[in-house]
Amino acid sequence: MLTRPDPSSYKPTDAAGDGTQADDCFPIRQLEISDNAKGFVDLLGQLSSCPPISDAYFCSRFAELSALGDDHVICVIEDPNTGRIVATGSVFVEKKFLHGCGKVGHIEDIVVDTTSRGRCLGQRVVRFLAEHARAAGCYKVILDCTAELRGFYEKCGFVEKNVQMAMYFHD
Amino acid sequence: MLTRPDPSSYKPTDAAGDGTQADDCFPIRQLEISDNAKGFVDLLGQLSSCPPISDAYFCSRFAELSALGDDHVICVIEDPNTGRIVATGSVFVEKKFLHGCGKVGHIEDIVVDTTSRGRCLGQRVVRFLAEHARAAGCYKVILDCTAELRGFYEKCGFVEKNVQMAMYFHD
Repeated sequence: MLTRPDPSSYKPTDAAGDGTQADDCFPIRQLEISDNAKGFVDLLGQLSSCPPISDAYFCSRFAELSALGDDHVICVIEDPNTGRIVATGSVFVEKKFLHGCGKVGHIEDIVVDTTSRGRCLGQRVVRFLAEHARAAGCYKVILDCTAELRGFYEKCGFVEKNVQMAMYFHD
Repeated sequence: MLTRPDPSSYKPTDAAGDGTQADDCFPIRQLEISDNAKGFVDLLGQLSSCPPISDAYFCSRFAELSALGDDHVICVIEDPNTGRIVATGSVFVEKKFLHGCGKVGHIEDIVVDTTSRGRCLGQRVVRFLAEHARAAGCYKVILDCTAELRGFYEKCGFVEKNVQMAMYFHD
């Protein structure tokens, strides 16, 4: 069975429908190169291993991803009071032959700063990315998460589909 | 806990260790534009919805993917007796900031023709793609599958990690 969420729920500026006025003060936007100095990499470290990255290395990866245009987007939410990045997530568009040369959005690396949780910033990030995938012509958007986060993503309009398998080459 | 498979198990030409000599006669290679006439799209239709694709549309998508170079690879196995494509799979390389600007391989669209099953062609495709991801510098390779296919991917060296969630925009 397919889920067809209400398109109005995708508004990037929607505060996830919870009426939290404070969220409106935290605009969501695409990653900028200056975000390296605003704690973007530190924030990723709350999700998984993320050692500091030199400016040169950051710029190099930023350029590689920028070259992909709308096929790879990273969004961030900056706290205007502190100038720090407090939420982020990414989506990339996979081009297939399946489904009549269809496209699939893959959401990755969703993280909200521990001090900014409970304000629906995560939902706003996920909906921003899902809307990007939809607007890019994807027939679906997918992500992998731990079993504990199932409820969160269901609130964002996702349904459980499959099992994620992994093979590790190194840490 | 991390899985560190024996690198020797990745040999693209390894017949999955089952000693089936016939597999050696079925070379594995990257998709070529001429494979559109060898049943490649028909084969994908055994996996999911895949209506016929015009030559022009096939060529256009082929060019888009070729432009990604080693960051998006589709492999096929052709039956030399019939000239038909009997197995395929794809892998693309996602570039992250996480893990020190790490890279992750995503395996997609694994399918073996119903008439060619039981010859370990699927294992050969998966190992070819996993080896491509490893050689491209990925720290892991991941895929999503139905619960029924867990055992198959465990035989290929994968471990179960997470839950896949999906949001559908249209069929």
